[in-house]
Amino acid sequence: MADRQHSPSGEDSLIARYFKPLATDPGAFGLIDDAAVLKALGDDIVVTTDAIVEGVHFLSDDPPDTIARKALRVNLSDLAAKGATPAGFVLTLALRDADDSWLRPFARGLGEDASQFGCPLLGGDTVSTPGPLMISITAFGRVPEGKMVHRSGAKPGDRVVVTGTIGDAALGLDILTGGAVAAILGDDAVAREMLVGRYRVPQPRNALAEAVRDHASAAMDVSDGLAGDLAKLCAASGVSAVIDARSVPLSGAAATLLARGNVGLEALVCGGDDYEIVCAVPEDRFEAFAHAARQAGVAVACIGTVIAGLSVPRFLDNEGEEITLQRLSHSHF
Amino acid sequence: MADRQHSPSGEDSLIARYFKPLATDPGAFGLIDDAAVLKALGDDIVVTTDAIVEGVHFLSDDPPDTIARKALRVNLSDLAAKGATPAGFVLTLALRDADDSWLRPFARGLGEDASQFGCPLLGGDTVSTPGPLMISITAFGRVPEGKMVHRSGAKPGDRVVVTGTIGDAALGLDILTGGAVAAILGDDAVAREMLVGRYRVPQPRNALAEAVRDHASAAMDVSDGLAGDLAKLCAASGVSAVIDARSVPLSGAAATLLARGNVGLEALVCGGDDYEIVCAVPEDRFEAFAHAARQAGVAVACIGTVIAGLSVPRFLDNEGEEITLQRLSHSHF
Repeated sequence: MADRQHSPSGEDSLIARYFKPLATDPGAFGLIDDAAVLKALGDDIVVTTDAIVEGVHFLSDDPPDTIARKALRVNLSDLAAKGATPAGFVLTLALRDADDSWLRPFARGLGEDASQFGCPLLGGDTVSTPGPLMISITAFGRVPEGKMVHRSGAKPGDRVVVTGTIGDAALGLDILTGGAVAAILGDDAVAREMLVGRYRVPQPRNALAEAVRDHASAAMDVSDGLAGDLAKLCAASGVSAVIDARSVPLSGAAATLLARGNVGLEALVCGGDDYEIVCAVPEDRFEAFAHAARQAGVAVACIGTVIAGLSVPRFLDNEGEEITLQRLSHSHF
Repeated sequence: MADRQHSPSGEDSLIARYFKPLATDPGAFGLIDDAAVLKALGDDIVVTTDAIVEGVHFLSDDPPDTIARKALRVNLSDLAAKGATPAGFVLTLALRDADDSWLRPFARGLGEDASQFGCPLLGGDTVSTPGPLMISITAFGRVPEGKMVHRSGAKPGDRVVVTGTIGDAALGLDILTGGAVAAILGDDAVAREMLVGRYRVPQPRNALAEAVRDHASAAMDVSDGLAGDLAKLCAASGVSAVIDARSVPLSGAAATLLARGNVGLEALVCGGDDYEIVCAVPEDRFEAFAHAARQAGVAVACIGTVIAGLSVPRFLDNEGEEITLQRLSHSHF
């Protein structure tokens, strides 16, 4: 038909309807091109990529908007830990079908977070899959040249610092998957919802990025459990650490469950999905770091000290005895 | 155990074994950090992302090394069409299990292509999935500031140019999925293997990137069928085009099948997976473009002319009559 107008394919119209409104950066070209342009503006571009898979990193019946937020926030969390300011992201979305009732809230949640964190959608790819939903995001940040904060760099004597609270997300996952925590909490809906919320929608600490960049000798985000991730940071730095288990910051709900003996410390410090920052801060920078954290409105807790050696960081109890952790962190393989 | 050494998780050891050797860029930090650093070096960073899914974009029994090459090359093809020089990529790999006999050739093929195209691995994420394999790659290129070639920009009077040959990959897929082409080719193993090879391992035209950047008014890669992708380029440019079907470059095998009436033109110009470049070149730039293409060793064919109007590009037969194409391109939704 010679007079037929250009009619977009299913994928193109899906992108135009749901994702074009999120492509607010001029370098995204309204998502009508094959690629985006990212300007370094004299900085280094920090690149991180993290994917989440239905049934592995989120649950099939998680609300679509929280799935979107989690997919972006796990990447924002990496940028924060590297001291980088968000600059944008690209999205790969593998869907079984193009279901408007799922896509609408997904795109809304993604757009709200992109706006809140100043991290616009730059491009993406939407593919069909016969299998589980998968969302893969590559996020970009900027740091002044050479200033990305590494896992390596921690030195004996540095303080070990962690943001927020640890272990809530693991408890939230336990609740959602029918574990013991739901029954223990009984009708405490507030605690239940807080813990589930921590699993579904992490709170990346981007407000702390500048303080991390200015003061931390090493940093990473806590995604696979504090004990295992701290072990990775120490391994990359060629050091060890001693952690005072009492100092690990816990939410009221987690602290109560631990005090009552309903959960062990291991469930909290070896569970995943915290998306807090663990970092090493030299003693003479700690005061300035803590001040910057207060200014940023992010709670930070000093939980121990970096020491010389190559052994796995030790967690000590009230009596200074080492707490045995069977399994430092979660691995899918 | 206080004397336990750091022991990497399954994912970490998989990355160290197979992917660290590919992370040759200093900005990849040997894949032991949470993020990579990409330096713009005064250029614009061009970002593109494309994913391939088992059973959708490749077949379960495709050789692992060709799956890896295809995953990277579909992204390299986008960079080429945008006039960008490859700078690196990040990889998301969703696997059912960590099978060495699959991962070893996958990583080898990926590494060989990364080296050949000067596009080192910068980082990635390996996740487990209960579903189909999926490989999502975000690739980066560099162009001088403001010089990325867009889909928009084609003007009436420009020549429509395409690289290589069109339709081979669609015939290759037909062979692999038990279509009629295999029987028609009979014992012509050379043709069969060439066509299958074109489906499994695209030949991205990165050698032509500079010529595209210097001379094309608009360009994109042909991934979803020449007819549909040219329609997208025209739509983005606000123009139409007239294509001389006889001028569409075909391999010997495709030309024979077409001449014998075994396949129609539509199967060739509306099939997917060509990963050639279609571009618009102003008349007064065509000679310089063709010269640069010869220097680069990339075959280019002039297949028609950009015209004013908003209708879908028309393909004309030997008599100048329009060939009706039922379905311009492939869409998974």
